[in-house]
Amino acid sequence: MTYPKPTPLVASLPATVPFVGPETQERARGAAFNARLGANENVFGPSPKAVAAMQAAASEAWMYADPEHHALKQALGAHHGIGSDEFVIGEGIDGLLGYLVRIYVGHGDAVVTSDGAYPTFNYHVAGFGGTLHKVPYKDDHEDLAALTAKVLETNAKLVYLSNPDNPMGTWHPAQDVVAFAQNLPPTCLLVLDEAYIDTAPAGTAPAIGETPPNVIRMRTFSKAYGLAGARVGYAIGAPRVVSEFAKIKNHFGMSRPGLAAALGALQDQDYLGKTLEAVENSRKSIAEIATANGLQPLASATNFVAIDCGQDGAFAKRVLQSLIEQGVFVRMPFVAPQDRCIRISCGTDADLLHFKNALPHALTSAQS
Amino acid sequence: MTYPKPTPLVASLPATVPFVGPETQERARGAAFNARLGANENVFGPSPKAVAAMQAAASEAWMYADPEHHALKQALGAHHGIGSDEFVIGEGIDGLLGYLVRIYVGHGDAVVTSDGAYPTFNYHVAGFGGTLHKVPYKDDHEDLAALTAKVLETNAKLVYLSNPDNPMGTWHPAQDVVAFAQNLPPTCLLVLDEAYIDTAPAGTAPAIGETPPNVIRMRTFSKAYGLAGARVGYAIGAPRVVSEFAKIKNHFGMSRPGLAAALGALQDQDYLGKTLEAVENSRKSIAEIATANGLQPLASATNFVAIDCGQDGAFAKRVLQSLIEQGVFVRMPFVAPQDRCIRISCGTDADLLHFKNALPHALTSAQS
Repeated sequence: MTYPKPTPLVASLPATVPFVGPETQERARGAAFNARLGANENVFGPSPKAVAAMQAAASEAWMYADPEHHALKQALGAHHGIGSDEFVIGEGIDGLLGYLVRIYVGHGDAVVTSDGAYPTFNYHVAGFGGTLHKVPYKDDHEDLAALTAKVLETNAKLVYLSNPDNPMGTWHPAQDVVAFAQNLPPTCLLVLDEAYIDTAPAGTAPAIGETPPNVIRMRTFSKAYGLAGARVGYAIGAPRVVSEFAKIKNHFGMSRPGLAAALGALQDQDYLGKTLEAVENSRKSIAEIATANGLQPLASATNFVAIDCGQDGAFAKRVLQSLIEQGVFVRMPFVAPQDRCIRISCGTDADLLHFKNALPHALTSAQS
Repeated sequence: MTYPKPTPLVASLPATVPFVGPETQERARGAAFNARLGANENVFGPSPKAVAAMQAAASEAWMYADPEHHALKQALGAHHGIGSDEFVIGEGIDGLLGYLVRIYVGHGDAVVTSDGAYPTFNYHVAGFGGTLHKVPYKDDHEDLAALTAKVLETNAKLVYLSNPDNPMGTWHPAQDVVAFAQNLPPTCLLVLDEAYIDTAPAGTAPAIGETPPNVIRMRTFSKAYGLAGARVGYAIGAPRVVSEFAKIKNHFGMSRPGLAAALGALQDQDYLGKTLEAVENSRKSIAEIATANGLQPLASATNFVAIDCGQDGAFAKRVLQSLIEQGVFVRMPFVAPQDRCIRISCGTDADLLHFKNALPHALTSAQS
């Protein structure tokens, strides 16, 4: 049988998925997880106002969403104190990263990131034929000096920085991020992934109104706002940058109930405040469980905690495997030496009790 | 100010939107439409079971959707009597068309479609640097012989056919579509857009189990199932073809409530049957309104009716403008001679009463 041939680029790509979903693992193990702590979802859930808005929109789901996303952009503009023309809304940060790479990265164009940083960004770079250059983490932080040097060395068009960082939970203060951006050549765009910014300490986010022109900031309703399943992310940048998305994006890609939910969530900042308290308490509990088991939790500005298992990646992987077998869904960094850690998303007390109960056996079995 | 430069391809693209949304027009005119009959949405709405499933999923929206879309694929496999590996699910047909073009179309690769057919497909072809070759409609039908000849002439990698057709509502019988596919060179993939297949007469859809290997069929929950705002489309094709999507797509692009709604809708075939009756009745009403105003309705296999206004495109455009000014959102074909028509989506009795009341004045004002 003869089939039409994909482009040489697509033909060369592996059939990889950046992340295997917990449902896939549940089907493989034949049982649901007891605790879902692997995807940095927000188990505390969205605001009841977001849920109500989504439910009200369900019966209007026969209508396409407004492709200009006017209402949400206006609300975001008011929330952040900038113009609505400085936003582009997309199908989660994943979707926006795909569009962004498509806009800026042609075959062979250089892109810089950290070795072990967000694999979905790397997936998009490979998918558009870019050449990825990676620098190692330094003391479990993305290494700003090394990233700058690599950008200069490779004449990169994009450099990716997650602040706070995933998968380690570490962060840089705002002034260091601004200095990093200002030191880049103006031909290089900083992709500042701020998926976890809402849970970070004050002083981590550069002021929105002072975003340097060579920076595009990625935000999401998936984490602190608890709407991962609604697929609403947004980017903040110069109108000249964010307007490029309109040339290529799926203008009708956003779900109407998802947009309604995001608007409802944004308008309930009280609920967000309660979520942030719950996240902080949960981070403390995870750290306590780690310490009680003789492990070192890393300080975290995110809705998860990386726990140093104290040995190598093979050991941490055995710990992780045992946790999964015991019904606790967690993930871990991919690259040494960060892969000495496992990564635990914040959870309810019930979730963390499952983790607490499973961890000692996981450590014992990993030793043997 | 120096900014990072988009790729030469993206820099060359216009900042176009394939369709201006009705909300944009409502903001411009300062008032909501009385009848929303321009986007071929299904005003009869989704099944109450789909709405209930979506509402139940709203409080689970903190979880990402299963990136394998296992439940919906299994249900589609059972519904259509084929394997779940013959499906790929995406963010509406628009999203799937974008991925498909990306997979197969490199810079300068030839693609064939009809002049006046779905502009979003053309948008994606331009967006990936393909070269679009168009053939005219013949008697308001997409011209299978001309499409075949153009494929052979240009060595096209893709050929687009919407059956039933949008914007004219015409259709080809299944055996003609199968013969068309079989006559294509095996290096050319037929993109068979079946967005409107549910409202077509028996004998329009080739048997699903006998889809030729060089055909990918696009289906959607946006039309007959009434879930345009949920963004759930799917493609049916050989596993070898549909598996290519996994190399490049946004694996976490689907909303969880949207997938739940689609599953609920698929499982309520009784409701679909009632929708199809309502669509048929509405088509008749639209035809009667046209005839009563001395205009010719085209026979339709879709959830809309193209009405021949009897003069040229400029006249039809004046009719359309007046309808819009009177609060009736409709659209029209872009290309002569099909642009002598206006296109009216099926509506409730109340919707169609607005149209009926507005049309005489629209015709009078268009004459002057």
